[in-house]
Amino acid sequence: MTKNQLSAQIRKKKSFLCVGLDTDLEKIPEFLLDYADPIFEFNKRIVDATAPYAVAYKPNIAFYEAYGIEGWQSLERTMEYINARYPEVFTIADAKRGDIGNTSARYAEAFFGKMNFDSVTVAPYMGSDSVKPFLEFENKWVILLALTSNKGSLDFQVQQIEDESGRKPLYQKVIEESLSWGTDQNLMYVIGATRTEYIEHVRKIAPDSFFLVPGVGAQGGDLDAVAQYGMNKSVGLLVNSSRGIIYAGSGTDFQKDVEKAAHDLAQQMAKHF
Amino acid sequence: MTKNQLSAQIRKKKSFLCVGLDTDLEKIPEFLLDYADPIFEFNKRIVDATAPYAVAYKPNIAFYEAYGIEGWQSLERTMEYINARYPEVFTIADAKRGDIGNTSARYAEAFFGKMNFDSVTVAPYMGSDSVKPFLEFENKWVILLALTSNKGSLDFQVQQIEDESGRKPLYQKVIEESLSWGTDQNLMYVIGATRTEYIEHVRKIAPDSFFLVPGVGAQGGDLDAVAQYGMNKSVGLLVNSSRGIIYAGSGTDFQKDVEKAAHDLAQQMAKHF
Repeated sequence: MTKNQLSAQIRKKKSFLCVGLDTDLEKIPEFLLDYADPIFEFNKRIVDATAPYAVAYKPNIAFYEAYGIEGWQSLERTMEYINARYPEVFTIADAKRGDIGNTSARYAEAFFGKMNFDSVTVAPYMGSDSVKPFLEFENKWVILLALTSNKGSLDFQVQQIEDESGRKPLYQKVIEESLSWGTDQNLMYVIGATRTEYIEHVRKIAPDSFFLVPGVGAQGGDLDAVAQYGMNKSVGLLVNSSRGIIYAGSGTDFQKDVEKAAHDLAQQMAKHF
Repeated sequence: MTKNQLSAQIRKKKSFLCVGLDTDLEKIPEFLLDYADPIFEFNKRIVDATAPYAVAYKPNIAFYEAYGIEGWQSLERTMEYINARYPEVFTIADAKRGDIGNTSARYAEAFFGKMNFDSVTVAPYMGSDSVKPFLEFENKWVILLALTSNKGSLDFQVQQIEDESGRKPLYQKVIEESLSWGTDQNLMYVIGATRTEYIEHVRKIAPDSFFLVPGVGAQGGDLDAVAQYGMNKSVGLLVNSSRGIIYAGSGTDFQKDVEKAAHDLAQQMAKHF
């Protein structure tokens, strides 16, 4: 998907909501466990309930991998369903991969080729050659971890690095360095919304880039502040909510509550258009 | 596997050779393609040919993931075979995972639970809570990326960090910080052997830890220097070779050349015992 297509979809829906598909057999409504593939059945219903409000879906790959081959089948079925039924939405393999060149190329093939995701999240620690193989696919995106929203982000990401242009936190170095690896047409950043000043700061470093913002909902974070400091001329934001939406309901009519949760979040976003 | 068990196996075989199973359908002997699961058939023959000389096997998870569900089946079969036939060898899921806590817990479940790997490689960028869930499994290991052997390791890993104890490269900060997350009984480090002084430096920072050293063979690196500066009282080294061993031969008798490649490397190691 191109940047223009993504922006157009966001403006049309007046929403930059990404729904995280962190699907857990222990948390989904019990009646779904009678189906042959409960994970897929759950995801299908979540996607159908939220598609008017969501512009992106983000399966959290670990949740599928934990179920082994059956989990991968559920993921493949989910992607086939989304791609066939909602081709306009943006899809994110939240895999946080990153390895030496020939290995990263394999992961790129798995997520972009085999499963037809639009994007994959990638960890920066191993540097440029771990990221570049993902950037070689046309109309596909890398979403690079810059500043995450977990507590452990304080361990290294905000530590002060000293390079030729002065002192800066590691996440800034990661963004500045990586801006030359790709373009704002194929490279986004994960930016945690745990503090408003982070979004403000990062928007200055990467004015044209899209940010994927986790941490609104279960992990805290203020949606209005994110919109205020994070939006740019192509909107430039995808804000993720996982558990707050997908587990909003229970019982056989859980989709109603799921739809309402997505609707409410999208309404809060619509104010900013 | 405990540290004592690993050290005992290394001393018995006089080898700290790890064989990387980066299995690629385009590189394996052609006759194997007639089998129902060529990847497993190849791996089985590699393991049989090298087991007298190798103390560890390291499937590179991307290579399996690239083949989708079939790839995961090949990986599961490979692990079942190794665990049943060679229970004394150490197994490494070279997955370079690392995510927020509940997600890392899922990956841990996939590799330690479902597939019974002894260890998994983990990326440090997201900090302590992305690593700790892997450390909660008894007799299982985290192998944390500290200093890798690829060109991109220069982008961030060797950059100077400034903290309360002074200036130091990021990889040193990662090691110092993480030493308190686990113990030398459940936490190892990936240390690239691209420069001898790196091994020497890191051995000072983590005197008791095991290091997994890639980059001997296809990626360069001097085995004797690694042994000289890296060995500690429990040996403390696993040195990986992938392509140099597994693609050493071709044709139906490829196992002979594979065995010879592993034997030669192990002999070079034996001199250091």
